[in-house]
Formats: sequence, structure tokens, C-alpha cells
Amino acid sequence: MVGGRYKPLTDAEILQIHELVLRLLEDLGLSQLTPSLEARAIAAGCRVDDDGRLRFPRMLVEDVIARSRRTFTLHGIDPMHDIEIGGRRVHTGTGGAAPTIMDFETGRYRESTVADLYDIARLVDRLDNIHWYHRSIVARDATTILDLDMNTTYACLSGTTKSIAVSYTDSASVRAVQPMLDAVAGGDGKHRARPFCTAVCCHVVPPMRFATESCDALEAAVLAGLVLCHIIDPECRGIFAAWPFVSDLRTGAMSGGSGEQALLSAACAQMANFYDLPNSVPAGMTDSKLPDAQSGGEKGYTVSLAAQAGATMIHECAGMQGSLMGTSFESYVIDNDLLGAILRTVKGIEVTQDTLSFEVIRETVTGVGHYLGHAQTFARMKTDYVYPEVADRRSIGEWEGAGARDSRDVARDRVRKILAEHYPRHIGAEVDAAIRAQYNIILPRERMQAGNGIW
Amino acid sequence: MVGGRYKPLTDAEILQIHELVLRLLEDLGLSQLTPSLEARAIAAGCRVDDDGRLRFPRMLVEDVIARSRRTFTLHGIDPMHDIEIGGRRVHTGTGGAAPTIMDFETGRYRESTVADLYDIARLVDRLDNIHWYHRSIVARDATTILDLDMNTTYACLSGTTKSIAVSYTDSASVRAVQPMLDAVAGGDGKHRARPFCTAVCCHVVPPMRFATESCDALEAAVLAGLVLCHIIDPECRGIFAAWPFVSDLRTGAMSGGSGEQALLSAACAQMANFYDLPNSVPAGMTDSKLPDAQSGGEKGYTVSLAAQAGATMIHECAGMQGSLMGTSFESYVIDNDLLGAILRTVKGIEVTQDTLSFEVIRETVTGVGHYLGHAQTFARMKTDYVYPEVADRRSIGEWEGAGARDSRDVARDRVRKILAEHYPRHIGAEVDAAIRAQYNIILPRERMQAGNGIW
Repeated sequence: MVGGRYKPLTDAEILQIHELVLRLLEDLGLSQLTPSLEARAIAAGCRVDDDGRLRFPRMLVEDVIARSRRTFTLHGIDPMHDIEIGGRRVHTGTGGAAPTIMDFETGRYRESTVADLYDIARLVDRLDNIHWYHRSIVARDATTILDLDMNTTYACLSGTTKSIAVSYTDSASVRAVQPMLDAVAGGDGKHRARPFCTAVCCHVVPPMRFATESCDALEAAVLAGLVLCHIIDPECRGIFAAWPFVSDLRTGAMSGGSGEQALLSAACAQMANFYDLPNSVPAGMTDSKLPDAQSGGEKGYTVSLAAQAGATMIHECAGMQGSLMGTSFESYVIDNDLLGAILRTVKGIEVTQDTLSFEVIRETVTGVGHYLGHAQTFARMKTDYVYPEVADRRSIGEWEGAGARDSRDVARDRVRKILAEHYPRHIGAEVDAAIRAQYNIILPRERMQAGNGIW
Repeated sequence: MVGGRYKPLTDAEILQIHELVLRLLEDLGLSQLTPSLEARAIAAGCRVDDDGRLRFPRMLVEDVIARSRRTFTLHGIDPMHDIEIGGRRVHTGTGGAAPTIMDFETGRYRESTVADLYDIARLVDRLDNIHWYHRSIVARDATTILDLDMNTTYACLSGTTKSIAVSYTDSASVRAVQPMLDAVAGGDGKHRARPFCTAVCCHVVPPMRFATESCDALEAAVLAGLVLCHIIDPECRGIFAAWPFVSDLRTGAMSGGSGEQALLSAACAQMANFYDLPNSVPAGMTDSKLPDAQSGGEKGYTVSLAAQAGATMIHECAGMQGSLMGTSFESYVIDNDLLGAILRTVKGIEVTQDTLSFEVIRETVTGVGHYLGHAQTFARMKTDYVYPEVADRRSIGEWEGAGARDSRDVARDRVRKILAEHYPRHIGAEVDAAIRAQYNIILPRERMQAGNGIW
């Protein structure tokens, strides 16, 4: 499904922003680069100014953009879940680093855990419109960075056969996790050949001076990142991820569900498409703390606009609440339906002589049949329509007769059913035992099977 | 706020659809026209075929499109609420004809009444992003068509000073209501000079053979209506309203909240803009029966896409539930915030040398200040940001501390406050008494004031 039919910026505006980005990189540059990267950058043609800021000549930036990879496969653990990234094809999945989760039983927020990471992975595994599992919470029961990164990777790998993504802030973690990834991939070096775990690297951390609310500045920062990646590995499969976060200026607090956020995320996708780079934007980051009407509405317009603008990867668009500070199990199920409908809108309307249907219209108008009984209608029923899993389309009477439940309540049943039944077994017992022997795994093996008394 | 940045159809597809429309009107035509209109149509250049179908020569259709009014003022009762229609300026308001309403106290659906019409009018009067009040429910306590139409008009007029719209299916009603409109306008003939009540005329009633699910056929039908209007009054202020309604083909029931609906409504807005005609499309017609996450999500993407496609009037986009079969007071308040955010996205991003802000970025990067303290940030806070009324942007902790309420619950407070306090008095006691003397008004005068014990 190819997006790009929504263009928040005009062509002239895109060029103006592009000019600003080049000027910011060349005339202002970035500060606080690591010495080793700085040396490589200088070798590649960058220079360091008197204030110690790394400057990027516009020729270099344009050259790197031109030579960057346009498309690649984002591998699932199971190849069935492989995704072709690039070419404005729109995909949707999780993201985030919420420190808290709405407890399924009490409805109150509590610290999130490794077990939650695993349970969300299992949910995602069963929800068709969530195309990958970028870990959405931070496991607070891991005590060291290394434990956190190992256990996050393990919980994600164990719960789903879709592509996973983990944020590694420490190079030691990246090295330490390799044997685990290889073990799941089937042997030494196998993961590198078909990588299914994405390392998310946030190379511009707020509050760096560069990360102002300005979309342009953030875009410049990410372009700088692209140049650096390219210096390290010209074949790298990078994702151009300009992620502007909007603040409510009355309080300074993030407002991920605002119209301003929807607009900026969509504009970033459009800029990325101007550069013809595989990209990611955040959307679906509602400010609401629970799956209510506010939450649905904010997710609806933010994800819609990002998708229609042709974002190749939309992150954070399932499960997140409270401007990324929380998550809720029910939301994944509810958002899965929302994403299905939005992806349907991205698919667009097929206009051909066959679908224009002059003759079919004439037959149903002048003949005795009703369009509902026409063969074309029956055929189109299967190709043109998406049917939601939990969204309720019944009449008011039927709905009231069945208990007048809201979507959150209905989603709870689905969460409970999936989590009670679905325990993926793609990692064999022997491989799992080997991993457990090598790493400090927090999640007990007996938690990873039906009848564990939790769900 | 001018839309049109989202184009679900390509230019080539628009031309193909346009060709089909002309062909349908010329080669297939419409059946079941009234004899008087048929005679006028023939005089204007149409012809009736052997099957009694009225055929529209393509030259005539194109001619009428070319000569139609492009813009006009949709008057509010108070000129403060006048709206300039046309030129892809996007406006949002109510619509619908729900037979039921979710009772505010019991939460159960019941038949809607004249008092509900009046109360919704008062809500709409206080919600800034609902630009008009097209009656959204049918008063079931009116026993005749004439009583219904009189009382609907009266309840709408009394509850808001925004522009109102009523569906009159009977020409007797249209004649009977004129003195009431003139009385409110300030005297004989005053309403025609500054009309604030729109007559909604659904000239193609399903299940006419022409009204298949095909967007193209519906579009053709509406174009035929345009020709007829033009024959009657070349200066008429018509709204091109191609309203395709999607059915869930498993059940035949309408699915107003589907992705398919979002796409078709947006495509109709785009076709209308191709004709450069003031237009209306429906959006926000969720299938959910109450303001929950499903409701919010479906409203979010359907209204977004219609707005970005440049619909000049988006109807049904506040308050409706259950695919137009119901309404809920809370939804008007919740949807008002949603519409505000979506209209903000339509406003777009201002790209100028000033907003690109190279110098401001340099100052905040190299200087000692933070961008939050910069004068430009403070100025932009007032021009670039929309602040919602009930949407919750607090932290999880603050929200839990304040009772962990969902948006429906918060909206209830706002509904109760508005309806307890806001009793518009733009119709003077004398005029009201005169209207009551002339018409069979159901709504008691004492219901129309604070302290009536209802709210």
C-alpha cells in the first residue's frame, strides 16, 4: 500500500526547508560528537569549527542522500513477516519506551516489567495490522543496563515471530546480544545474514541544543545522522527518522496527540519522501491515559495523516497512552482495527473500466436485480472491504441486547483469550535452555506456557 | 483554512470518473422525476427516453457546472457566525436524522424529542468547532410531518445563533415555516435577504435504482440534481453533496465508520473540487454506539481525510453514533475538540523565512537561552497552537490523582454545565409569543430557562 496522496507541504516549501537544512548543517553544525566519529567525519569531508561544532558541507550531504539505500527487507523472525521497506509503502507497528503500564486487572498504572514485554509481544504476534514489535515499554524489573537490554531482547524474541526492535544505548549490549540473536537465527553469523532485530539508535538526544521544537532543526539533525551512518557503513540499512515531538507550550509537557503533532509527523514523512529515503515517523501517541474517545480520535488523525503522507514506517501507533509514558493491553487490540481501516484508506480506490462499471450499473438500474445480488458486488466484497476484529457494527438494539459494552471492554476479552492461549514455540527448548545458561534471564520458563495461572 | 492537500484520486482517475458520470447521465439517465420538473427539464434541453428516463446531454451538464455559483455566505442567525462557503475552505458541523438518543442520565437509548433538539442546539452554540447546526435528530414527539418540521425549526432557532439546517420533505412545510423565519429575522422578507435556515433536500432517495453503492453513480445523481436546481433558479446557492454510504456487505448494514467510507467521502470532496463547487460530504459517522475508543478512531480518520481533501462542508461530524442511528450529548463536546485539532492540521504549516528561523535557531544553539524562553516561541504559542477544552494532557500521575476519568466522563460535566447555564435569548419574548400563537409549539416556554429542574 503506497502512500503519498497527502502533501502537507507544497513543492516550493519543501525546497525552502531543504535549503534551511543544508544551511544549518553547513553553517551551524552539530556539537558533542564522539572523538572517533569526529575523526571519521573529518576524513569524509566534514570540518570542525572554532566552537567545536561539526560542519557538514552541502555537497557531502547531497552526495550521501544520493547514495543511500532506497529499499531493503525488514526481516521477520519468521520470513512470513518480512516487510519490504521503501518506495512509500506504508507499514505500521509499535514503538516507545513507556516506563508504566495500565495493569490489566486493577486498571491502575504500575511499573512495566519483562513479563509485560513478553505478553505484549504475544499480542502483537496475533494482530495483523501491527507489522513489527519495537519494544514499547521499559522493563523496570531489570536492574542493570545490560540486564535490561538482554531481557528486553529475549522477551521480544520469545513472544513473536515478527521483526523486533530494541534500543541499545550501550555498545556493550550490542555485542552481548549477538550470540542470542544468532542462536534464534539458527547458528553463528545467521542473524547478520537475515537480521530480524533492529537496533534503534537515538543519536540526537533532547535537550541537545539542536533538538528544538522546530521540525526543520530535527530534520537537519537526522540528516547529519544519515551522513554519519554512511561514513561508518555505506551499505547500512538506515531509516530516516525525523521525530519531532510537540510540547504544549502552556506547560512544556509533550502533546503527542495534538493536531500540531499530526501535521509535523506527516510533514517529516513528506520530507523523507522528497529525499526518497526509507523513513519512520511517530504517530498514535495520544495524550489520553486510557483507550477512550479522546485516545481513539487522536490516534485516528495522527496515524491517518502520517500514513497518507507516505511514511514507510509508522512507529508508536499501537498501544501507547499518555504521550508515550504508558501503555495498555487493550489498546493494542483496539488500535489493530484502527490501523486496518487506515491502511485500507491508503490502498485507495481502484479506478479502471471494470470498477467504473457502466454496464453493471446499467444492468442493475434497468434490470430486475438489486446491486447486492450482483456477482460483481460479491467479488468486490472480498477484495475491497476490510472487516474489523472488535469494532462493533451492530445495530443499537442488538448492541444493547448484548450488554452495551464499549470497545475497551470488548478488547479485554480478546486480550485475555490471546494471552491465555498464544504461547509461540519458535524457539526450541534446547535453544532456550542454552540462552538461559548464557544470560541472566528474568522471565521464568514456566511463565511462558498456557495454564500458568496468570492469564 | 483551505484543504485539498490530500488527493485520493489522480488527475487521470478524476477524468475517468467524470467521463463515466457524463455517460451515465446522457446514456442511462434518471427515472421517476415529477411531471412539472420533467417539463422544465425538457425545455432546458433534457430528453425523456422510451423507458421514461430523463437523459441529460453532456453539453447541458457541463454548461450548468460552468455557470454554477462558486461561493456564497452561509448566514448565521447572528452575523458573527456567518461562514464563507467555497474555495476549498473547510468547515465542520452537525448533520443527521437519528431517531434515538442516548439518555444522559440512564445511558440507554430512547426516542429523541423536540427538547433534545433544543438542548443539542444550545450545546452546539457553545462549541466553537461546530460551525452550524443541521438538526441531527428526528423529534419523535411530533405527530405530523408539519408539526415535526415546525417544531424542529423552532427548537433549532431558539437554541443557537449559528446557521441552522432542517430537512423539509414536504413543500407545505417549506411554505409554513417562512413566517417563523421572518419573525426571527426581524420582519417580512428579512429571511430571504439574509437566509440563516438551509433547506436540506435529498432528491435521490435510496433505494432508487440509481443509488447503488457506487460512488460514481451517486455522483451522477447529484450532478443531475445540480442541473435541476439550476433550471429552477440559476442563482440558487446549492451545495454539491455526493453522499455515498458504505454497507458492510456481510450484513447489508451501513458502516459509516469504515475505512471505505473515509475514502469515498474524501474522493467525493475531491470530485466536487474538480468541479469547483461548494460541497458537502459526510464524515464522523462512527459505527460505535457510544463515545469510546472505536468511536474516536473512526471519527478521527473519516473527518481527517474529508477535511484534508478540501470538503467545504463536513456534515455529521459531531455527536453522531451508531452509523447515524443515534446521538449522544457527550459526543458533541468530545468531537468539538477533535474537530479543532483536525482543523488545525488543515491550516497547515506556515513556511516563510521568518518561520524557518535560521537566526533564531542559531541564537538558541549558540547562545545561553532555551528555545522555550525565546520571544518567538512565546509569539508562536498564541498563533500556532490549538488548546482543547476537555482532552486531557496531564501526566499519568496527575490524571490518576484527579480520579482517572475517561473523556466521556469529563465531557458529561461540560454538557451539564452548558445545558444548565446557556439559554440563548436572541429571540425576544414578544416574538416568541407571536410564534407560539401562530404555531403548535411542543417545547414549553418554561423548559427554556435556567432552573427548570432538567439540567
